[in-house]
Amino acid sequence: MALKEEGVVKEVVGCGRGKANLTEAQTLGVIDHYTHDVATAVKGADMVLLSVPLGAMRNTLEAMRGQLAADAVVTDAGSVKGSVVDDLRAVFGEVPGFFVPGHPIAGTERSGAAAAFAELYRNRRVILTPLSETDQHALQRVEKMWRQCGAEVVQMTVEHHDEVLAATSHLPHMLAFTLVDSLARMKENNEIFSFAAGGFRDFTRIASSNPVMWRDICIANQRSLNEMLTRFADELHELAELLQHGDEKGLLEIFERAKQARDRYVDGVDR
Amino acid sequence: MALKEEGVVKEVVGCGRGKANLTEAQTLGVIDHYTHDVATAVKGADMVLLSVPLGAMRNTLEAMRGQLAADAVVTDAGSVKGSVVDDLRAVFGEVPGFFVPGHPIAGTERSGAAAAFAELYRNRRVILTPLSETDQHALQRVEKMWRQCGAEVVQMTVEHHDEVLAATSHLPHMLAFTLVDSLARMKENNEIFSFAAGGFRDFTRIASSNPVMWRDICIANQRSLNEMLTRFADELHELAELLQHGDEKGLLEIFERAKQARDRYVDGVDR
Repeated sequence: MALKEEGVVKEVVGCGRGKANLTEAQTLGVIDHYTHDVATAVKGADMVLLSVPLGAMRNTLEAMRGQLAADAVVTDAGSVKGSVVDDLRAVFGEVPGFFVPGHPIAGTERSGAAAAFAELYRNRRVILTPLSETDQHALQRVEKMWRQCGAEVVQMTVEHHDEVLAATSHLPHMLAFTLVDSLARMKENNEIFSFAAGGFRDFTRIASSNPVMWRDICIANQRSLNEMLTRFADELHELAELLQHGDEKGLLEIFERAKQARDRYVDGVDR
Repeated sequence: MALKEEGVVKEVVGCGRGKANLTEAQTLGVIDHYTHDVATAVKGADMVLLSVPLGAMRNTLEAMRGQLAADAVVTDAGSVKGSVVDDLRAVFGEVPGFFVPGHPIAGTERSGAAAAFAELYRNRRVILTPLSETDQHALQRVEKMWRQCGAEVVQMTVEHHDEVLAATSHLPHMLAFTLVDSLARMKENNEIFSFAAGGFRDFTRIASSNPVMWRDICIANQRSLNEMLTRFADELHELAELLQHGDEKGLLEIFERAKQARDRYVDGVDR
């Protein structure tokens, strides 16, 4: 939608399994037409954007192997980059020069064509994680595409991306899912939810995200996420100890440090 | 502000320690005038609303003892009710009939007079936790006041209030503070925060709340909060185990149950 508004794409072909979502995408003008067949979808395409749950990445790559045009560039929007690189090596025997691993840091808890809007990427960051094998021309084309959507493009290594995202996105999603599930499992859960206020609503918004997508992110970023979970669990244990000992000073220190960091972060975002 | 808009209050006297906030409150029309002295503030008042960090409750009650008009009604806005009842018993030797323990389930992460707006309580819930000692006339007056602010008033026991709030508010605040502090303590914390997206911003909004207020809530609701923290830590441990074993089915079950509960909760709020 963003590229269409910019007038920089001619024909957009959608590919997916469900007819309902593809029909809706066509009606909304997100895509021009669609197919359920990956080989047909990528035929003659200049640019291919893979946006599938990470668990479906390998099969999707298999389906497009040998079907791409000679000058085609392929990129993806997966939330973990290490697993995508593994999938590329498994399918192509190497990371092909035409493939630029990417991750737009934007999105909402909603899925599907109806949740799409052209401004989603404006002033948001897109992380690209090119490897030494990556073709520089392919990299430039992907960078240009995201800039045309209004995004700021940054580069980092695959490993660093997966650590940063484990901290800022994957861990928070785990906490939101776990909190909501903990409360849902309490016998008085209906009453409990009925007394939740606005803070709870915001805090748990990300627990409404797509479960299959998040299962796949967990599996794909297992190592980094596990490290972050351990780090968090240790600090939560520390907090519980302070609470049990009624350590007012220790509790205040944590809350003050957190408030300062969070206020500084919001200031940074608003600037 | 809400009561003034409704035209049901004549004179509102503000009392606090900081001059800046009280002056601002007066300028904004939140209060008519102010004093730093509790005894002066409550003199001749029909209705007193105590809104101080829970750790300051006992001293504030001490300061108003013997200074209230014969027909005065006192209520509070503390996030924990057990500790307020303990404070009342310590100061008055009993829970006085004129005191109606209360808690409006509304608020933002911002503090001070500048954060006030008349619509804050509209269609929000206010929990009152009267005891057998509570005067029925006093209870009715407090109920009426909150209804005039547009709130829905419900009653529950002190103990149940503190359990429900530990689950829906106090635990989420602990998780948000702990998450932000965990990330702030990482050596690459500036870079990490710079890649946080909208989900993180919403998830951590409550970590910008007043640290002193939250230290006091922790101490005041130690027992119930500790139970909820244990429950959460156990479930987080369960999630970490599923992650370590790559248990896709188990992870998906948690995420699906959480999404269902959260979507149901949001539907309930919107209805």
